[in-house]
Amino acid sequence: MTNLADHLRTVRDFPRKGILFYDISPLLDDPVAFREAVDSLCARCEANGFSRGVTKICAVEARGFLFAPAMAYRMGWGVVPIRKPGKLPWKTIHETYDLEYGSSELHVHADAIGNEDTVLLFDDLLATGGTAAAMARLVRRLGGRIAGVQFLAELTFLNGRKMLRDCPVDSLIRIDE
Amino acid sequence: MTNLADHLRTVRDFPRKGILFYDISPLLDDPVAFREAVDSLCARCEANGFSRGVTKICAVEARGFLFAPAMAYRMGWGVVPIRKPGKLPWKTIHETYDLEYGSSELHVHADAIGNEDTVLLFDDLLATGGTAAAMARLVRRLGGRIAGVQFLAELTFLNGRKMLRDCPVDSLIRIDE
Repeated sequence: MTNLADHLRTVRDFPRKGILFYDISPLLDDPVAFREAVDSLCARCEANGFSRGVTKICAVEARGFLFAPAMAYRMGWGVVPIRKPGKLPWKTIHETYDLEYGSSELHVHADAIGNEDTVLLFDDLLATGGTAAAMARLVRRLGGRIAGVQFLAELTFLNGRKMLRDCPVDSLIRIDE
Repeated sequence: MTNLADHLRTVRDFPRKGILFYDISPLLDDPVAFREAVDSLCARCEANGFSRGVTKICAVEARGFLFAPAMAYRMGWGVVPIRKPGKLPWKTIHETYDLEYGSSELHVHADAIGNEDTVLLFDDLLATGGTAAAMARLVRRLGGRIAGVQFLAELTFLNGRKMLRDCPVDSLIRIDE
């Protein structure tokens, strides 16, 4: 078993001064670590009941896209991209959210999710929780049921789970300081 | 067998007037079509020798990220993200390229690829070929060998292969008009 946390690289002052950034690149470009991360994410989803009845996984651009399609492939789900403004070509709905640094809008295609869908939300990192909370609002507005919110890594000291009180949440790698 | 081309949606005048955009969303959010697309992409790579000795798949943000990780998971490869300026936190090298609409820079982490790597390039769409040609230059500057360039779809009438004469190229879906 690889220690997946060892495959995260910390970069100081990115994207701006004072931010300690967790770079997932070393985890992605190592075939063994990447496969193990995807397998472990899927195994945790199954163990926690997050995969029960799931039809689609929602992921936020761009780093969320680097794991969710592999999970979808393994588990037999569809993939719904959640994107920044101006990127999705069809009719969208959107939500505004606050980031650790700045604020933005998230869009999803209005026909990507419906009443019949049970959705797993995925993002690479749980920081303040604003992104995932906006994803959850988008999915619910389209009638989807949320089975759970799965993260690769979680900065536990930012207490992002408080933004997601109405969803079951799990992370593969906990970063406690 | 699904006809995967039927899962592409055409959107007129996106992202700007006069462009006919091929939306991959219906292919992504259908679990059967998505799995079939990934399996077919991998099967074509194997049949064409593009997977021989491959260690890593390079994909461009953001739509390239929606298939490459699933291919990497299935095939046992690492994933190397190629990104727009300001997105990668570590030391990068970059290349400038022309798009069908506009121009930009592509960056890759300088330590993501080395002499020991054989690389498959992936993008969702071959249009004019400028993006893929820039990816190929990045990989070669870092010492990587290119096994092939795989696309989900190709707009054959734009003749993008002329930009990639030094690489073997394949696409799963050919759009001829």
